[in-house]
Amino acid sequence: MKIGILGTGIVGETLGTKLVQLGHTVKMGSRIAANEKGVSWSKKNGPNATSGTFADAAKFGSMLFNCTSGLASLQALKLAGSENLSEKVLVDVSNPLDFSKGMPPFLSIANTDSLGEQIQRTFPRVKVVKALNTLNASLMTNPKSLAQGDHNLFICGNDSDAKKIVVSLLTSFGWNEGNIYDLGDISNARGTEMILPLWIRLMGKFQSPMFQFKIVR
Amino acid sequence: MKIGILGTGIVGETLGTKLVQLGHTVKMGSRIAANEKGVSWSKKNGPNATSGTFADAAKFGSMLFNCTSGLASLQALKLAGSENLSEKVLVDVSNPLDFSKGMPPFLSIANTDSLGEQIQRTFPRVKVVKALNTLNASLMTNPKSLAQGDHNLFICGNDSDAKKIVVSLLTSFGWNEGNIYDLGDISNARGTEMILPLWIRLMGKFQSPMFQFKIVR
Repeated sequence: MKIGILGTGIVGETLGTKLVQLGHTVKMGSRIAANEKGVSWSKKNGPNATSGTFADAAKFGSMLFNCTSGLASLQALKLAGSENLSEKVLVDVSNPLDFSKGMPPFLSIANTDSLGEQIQRTFPRVKVVKALNTLNASLMTNPKSLAQGDHNLFICGNDSDAKKIVVSLLTSFGWNEGNIYDLGDISNARGTEMILPLWIRLMGKFQSPMFQFKIVR
Repeated sequence: MKIGILGTGIVGETLGTKLVQLGHTVKMGSRIAANEKGVSWSKKNGPNATSGTFADAAKFGSMLFNCTSGLASLQALKLAGSENLSEKVLVDVSNPLDFSKGMPPFLSIANTDSLGEQIQRTFPRVKVVKALNTLNASLMTNPKSLAQGDHNLFICGNDSDAKKIVVSLLTSFGWNEGNIYDLGDISNARGTEMILPLWIRLMGKFQSPMFQFKIVR
């Protein structure tokens, strides 16, 4: 599949590298085409890894990942261009965490709205699937590195077919389909974004991001 | 120990009954002394179980549990009387969930504040310990009924000795001390209250409240 990754941080890089390893062709986008991290990542990952602007990556991918900082996501997606996003599955991995007032961070959107919903409202023709926003990047693409993969992911979105495509891709990362909980429509992004304050506190307590939520039933 | 329970709902009743079974003497308080649920509960649970007003229960207990609805907690605690609360450990089990606009509920306080913090600020001489607000009542007092107790509790509060007392009581309920994560001061109530929207969505999905969060490391 041709996949566009928006954002060149650790999340974008980790997902992009895994996707290339799985045989996909990936274009990583950022504000400027000459972004050092994007260029360096594409050089390291062979001919199926390229980089460019947000618009280049969005245009390239038949499926997209939003790996930009949550506070900058709407602006990044506007730069990507709604015509380049339209009708595509957009996996929204971001969280609207605001660290500007120090620790603990707060969410810039929460409770009666969410970033996932804002993106869906702003780009109504995009098929937003909120996923992978509740765990560390290295666990996203290598779930079995922790407790043999015995922990959970939450996804949500308005388009059932889009969610099926995302679940299928996640299983190719090593996730067991039974460990992925579909919460329903995109308004459930509120719930998954709102567990970030607890996640961040636990990361501080453990001095490590290598942990995960599991729902015990 | 003499324990005061504020609130006669399922949480108060479940905790009160367990505490009486463990040999404590418990007074359950509500807005009016003649509250049917309080009177009925005390009749069922023998001479160590009594009921009265919020103020009666608060005065009676050397340790207190706030099991009132989160939206009514501050008012209930004001009725209990700050002089009756002062210097006591108050386990705050409540969540500021507002169902007035239908499902999904939202939190009346969130993100940059929490109900736990509001209670601590309003009653600075009370030792507030936020605990037990992230799971179903029957699991609070019988953790081993699910996955042999292999799931987690989160507590927080400003007073270390108060947290030790709470952890000790929780172990008497069947909790393993190693499964109880102390998150730090009371500001961490934000994180534990904010996982309720996800909890409620999962309860709807599972059509059961018999599940729990576990942190996999």
